[in-house]
Amino acid sequence: MSTVPSRELASFANPRPGRDYEIRFECPEFTCLCPMTGQPDFATIRIRYRPRARCVELKSLKLYLWSFRDTGAFHEAVTNQILDDLVAVLDPESLEVEGDFLVRGGIHTVVRARHVGAPQPG
Amino acid sequence: MSTVPSRELASFANPRPGRDYEIRFECPEFTCLCPMTGQPDFATIRIRYRPRARCVELKSLKLYLWSFRDTGAFHEAVTNQILDDLVAVLDPESLEVEGDFLVRGGIHTVVRARHVGAPQPG
Amino acid sequence: MSTVPSRELASFANPRPGRDYEIRFECPEFTCLCPMTGQPDFATIRIRYRPRARCVELKSLKLYLWSFRDTGAFHEAVTNQILDDLVAVLDPESLEVEGDFLVRGGIHTVVRARHVGAPQPG
Amino acid sequence: MSTVPSRELASFANPRPGRDYEIRFECPEFTCLCPMTGQPDFATIRIRYRPRARCVELKSLKLYLWSFRDTGAFHEAVTNQILDDLVAVLDPESLEVEGDFLVRGGIHTVVRARHVGAPQPG
Amino acid sequence: MSTVPSRELASFANPRPGRDYEIRFECPEFTCLCPMTGQPDFATIRIRYRPRARCVELKSLKLYLWSFRDTGAFHEAVTNQILDDLVAVLDPESLEVEGDFLVRGGIHTVVRARHVGAPQPG
Amino acid sequence: MSTVPSRELASFANPRPGRDYEIRFECPEFTCLCPMTGQPDFATIRIRYRPRARCVELKSLKLYLWSFRDTGAFHEAVTNQILDDLVAVLDPESLEVEGDFLVRGGIHTVVRARHVGAPQPG
Amino acid sequence: MSTVPSRELASFANPRPGRDYEIRFECPEFTCLCPMTGQPDFATIRIRYRPRARCVELKSLKLYLWSFRDTGAFHEAVTNQILDDLVAVLDPESLEVEGDFLVRGGIHTVVRARHVGAPQPG
Amino acid sequence: MSTVPSRELASFANPRPGRDYEIRFECPEFTCLCPMTGQPDFATIRIRYRPRARCVELKSLKLYLWSFRDTGAFHEAVTNQILDDLVAVLDPESLEVEGDFLVRGGIHTVVRARHVGAPQPG
Amino acid sequence: MSTVPSRELASFANPRPGRDYEIRFECPEFTCLCPMTGQPDFATIRIRYRPRARCVELKSLKLYLWSFRDTGAFHEAVTNQILDDLVAVLDPESLEVEGDFLVRGGIHTVVRARHVGAPQPG
Amino acid sequence: MSTVPSRELASFANPRPGRDYEIRFECPEFTCLCPMTGQPDFATIRIRYRPRARCVELKSLKLYLWSFRDTGAFHEAVTNQILDDLVAVLDPESLEVEGDFLVRGGIHTVVRARHVGAPQPG
Repeated sequence: MSTVPSRELASFANPRPGRDYEIRFECPEFTCLCPMTGQPDFATIRIRYRPRARCVELKSLKLYLWSFRDTGAFHEAVTNQILDDLVAVLDPESLEVEGDFLVRGGIHTVVRARHVGAPQPG
Repeated sequence: MSTVPSRELASFANPRPGRDYEIRFECPEFTCLCPMTGQPDFATIRIRYRPRARCVELKSLKLYLWSFRDTGAFHEAVTNQILDDLVAVLDPESLEVEGDFLVRGGIHTVVRARHVGAPQPG
Repeated sequence: MSTVPSRELASFANPRPGRDYEIRFECPEFTCLCPMTGQPDFATIRIRYRPRARCVELKSLKLYLWSFRDTGAFHEAVTNQILDDLVAVLDPESLEVEGDFLVRGGIHTVVRARHVGAPQPG
Repeated sequence: MSTVPSRELASFANPRPGRDYEIRFECPEFTCLCPMTGQPDFATIRIRYRPRARCVELKSLKLYLWSFRDTGAFHEAVTNQILDDLVAVLDPESLEVEGDFLVRGGIHTVVRARHVGAPQPG
Repeated sequence: MSTVPSRELASFANPRPGRDYEIRFECPEFTCLCPMTGQPDFATIRIRYRPRARCVELKSLKLYLWSFRDTGAFHEAVTNQILDDLVAVLDPESLEVEGDFLVRGGIHTVVRARHVGAPQPG
Repeated sequence: MSTVPSRELASFANPRPGRDYEIRFECPEFTCLCPMTGQPDFATIRIRYRPRARCVELKSLKLYLWSFRDTGAFHEAVTNQILDDLVAVLDPESLEVEGDFLVRGGIHTVVRARHVGAPQPG
Repeated sequence: MSTVPSRELASFANPRPGRDYEIRFECPEFTCLCPMTGQPDFATIRIRYRPRARCVELKSLKLYLWSFRDTGAFHEAVTNQILDDLVAVLDPESLEVEGDFLVRGGIHTVVRARHVGAPQPG
Repeated sequence: MSTVPSRELASFANPRPGRDYEIRFECPEFTCLCPMTGQPDFATIRIRYRPRARCVELKSLKLYLWSFRDTGAFHEAVTNQILDDLVAVLDPESLEVEGDFLVRGGIHTVVRARHVGAPQPG
Repeated sequence: MSTVPSRELASFANPRPGRDYEIRFECPEFTCLCPMTGQPDFATIRIRYRPRARCVELKSLKLYLWSFRDTGAFHEAVTNQILDDLVAVLDPESLEVEGDFLVRGGIHTVVRARHVGAPQPG
Repeated sequence: MSTVPSRELASFANPRPGRDYEIRFECPEFTCLCPMTGQPDFATIRIRYRPRARCVELKSLKLYLWSFRDTGAFHEAVTNQILDDLVAVLDPESLEVEGDFLVRGGIHTVVRARHVGAPQPG
């Protein structure tokens, strides 16, 4: 099994499209680089969303999160980017991303951003 | 005592039908198979509901959950199926199922789906 | 000190009748019998209520919970019965009983029932 | 340093009177006597309030809680009394007292009472 | 690397100004002096805010919190001051500061203050 | 399935008699009566042993522990009796019983007794 | 039931004198007075011993610990005194007392003292 | 990736054969069948060993533990079998297996078995 | 009450000199300065010792730990210095100091040093 | 501040060479690559050692652990390599490294290796 990191997020058809339900992921294996110092940062990424037509595929999500490994990214910016990328692929009812970053300078930082989908024509 | 897994869910008459109350179950002994790889998946299944006329019988619930042992099932689909099967038998005021799956690919997944019963003629 | 279990619940006058406040009890020492098999069941009983004119007396509550020791009782029924018995004695603003039962058949069960008192003439 | 228990609660001027904010205290060192048996009872007292013009002074609060050491007091009554005494001194936006008493007769008791101040003329 | 404590809070442009999201900090390394006795006090400071145009820079926040080290400050006053100083620099949608102070006189104190920004012209 | 409590402890042949290994049981469902007051006591019973020829059968252990339900028993005596009864049936290398009793009079009691088997002729 | 604190420790005959076993008590309801300031101190007292001929009676232990309520006592001295008093009554194989005192001056103190009985003539 | 359960345990050469070090695995995903009732049992399997020439390969260990899924196995026997199988492949300095089984009949069972290798000719 | 930090450690006569017992302190309120950067470091200091003739006085210990507030000190050096200073005053049977420092550079550091007193002439 | 990962470990003179004491580090920010699949692995690295003449410098330790970020490394091999590298620089009395790796294939792996220094000529 050989895999490479990828910014492509794969999706599959929601198996229960008529129901408003929630899917949560927690990934403690996120790392990127500090744009100021070039040093690695580490975070747990938590995602929760309510699907419309599409669900995110778990293995592609793993590769997507891996793809930030060599990327410089501020805490506030990278959390919002993950939110934007997931929303672009899934067009969900709602989606929330929380980046929970390990201590830097004695301070523990958590950024949480949320998208709510536009109402659908009824 | 010899038992076999079964998709049949037994119920009994709600002993206090005039009251809106809640029943919760937590079962850490759920296993099914990954439809992609055939490998076993493990989850804790949590159920909470507010009964109308019927309550689910505990032993039949155990056998029902056991019946998924040799079934291929995606996380999102199986959580919704358990919800649908319980709703079909119980016609409850409301019922919620949470499937809390052990880590795959470094990611912990939880799916939570909820049914709210149609208003009853008053 | 010699005591016997009793279904009688004693009460005393609410020391602060003009205020809407809450009293909570947690008793991890509840046991009854399974009506199907005759085997003992064990639970923690949690009670929370907002008194009107009467408060439940602690020692009589202990004896009341003890009185189920040799009684066959389903989880759903016994939780509702405790609620009914307390409401009959206290006529509270509101009262909630939670029966949190130890694992049977790999499943942990919690039943929670709530009474809200009828509005009082103002 | 020599101090004696006191029912007097001292206060100081709220340093930020224009803002609606919250102050919480937790004191695990409360003891009084059971009025029935004369035996000691033990509790953790939790207080939370939103000040108007006055804040309670920490040392006088300590002496005030100490003053119950030789007093007979029922759980429900003493929690309400602490609330009444604090409200009399502080006239707060709101104030809540929780008395969390150690196990007696196998039962753990918590009493929580809350005062909401009368609206102020605007 | 040589740094000195500073009351100056630096900010940077919000990387996602069109979205209402939340940033949280927890710093267990806060110390100041008791204005009554001159003895050191210790606290964990928790900050959560929803940015408008500006975000607070992490290193300047560290130096800002450090700057209280030799300052006499009451619990209620210092929590409100940190809130005021952050609001002055950030003009946020909302911002909350919680000062969680270690035990003094057997009592644990937490002060929580919140600012909500004035509505912006639409 | 109909069962009754029983002082008979069943055993089965150790499946790996040539190896010195350990078996532990924890049962939070033990209750007996206080010989002084007749009131129920509750405990968690923990057992650990290293078998020789025989292992204790799990269901008979459950019925054995159930059999104390209507028996008056002091903490120190009942813990030692369980140890004696298990040793009589199993003749183990070693066996330890711990009775961990819920709070009475504000005091939590744990009794732990241990048997070490006589050396076997080599 | 009316009781008064007492320095008398009652004992009963060890129900299993031929076995070397352990009894542990944990009492979170200990309070005495600081000999320097007269203010109350609070502690959890933990006792563990291996009996010879006598075991300590639980209710008398409760009254004994209660008897320190109005006594001035330094942490180191009171822990050793409890040990001496129990040893005088029980003449145990061994006995350990741990006094775990709540925070004073930002420091949490634990004192642990142990007695080992003189060898008995064989 | 398609895999099937297998009783074959693969190994690789110890990368640091001259040092006595320890490797631990914890797998919460073990399930087998009860030989008495045919119903599923669930356990966490913990393994710790000190290698000689060979280390166990992680993926083959996963498949090996999976292979018990349709096997009837008593708690005591299966724990010892896993130990025997690992010892046969690895010939380690020492190896310990702990099977920590979910509650059956109100009792939680843990079996721990340990192998110590024969001394090697020096 | 006005106090100043002090390097002087006061002691008092061991109240039970004939017994080998242990005293433990935990102080989460230690701060000093990093000698490299001048920035504050924070630690919990844990002390445990077995006294000979002298015990350390609690208030002087508080002032002693406070005295490091403006001192530059490496983790390894300051932990050993506290040990040396306590040993000089107490001449104990044994004494251990543990400095448990908050995260710096993503790494949590704990230093533990121990002194064992020279045998006393018998 | 600009830094790059480095395999160079810096040390400084032990500030208390005459004493046998212990230094512990815990770093939850370790990541390397799986040599089989190229995918990232994550671990917490724990180090404890008793110094002789030299102590490891904290910042160089951070850079050293960072240097594995793009390296393929098996769990067993990398833990032993960190041990070997630290021993080469420090020549300690003893040194232990524990690599605690996040779940792969449903299995959590911990590798712990220990070096004991050769006796020094006395």
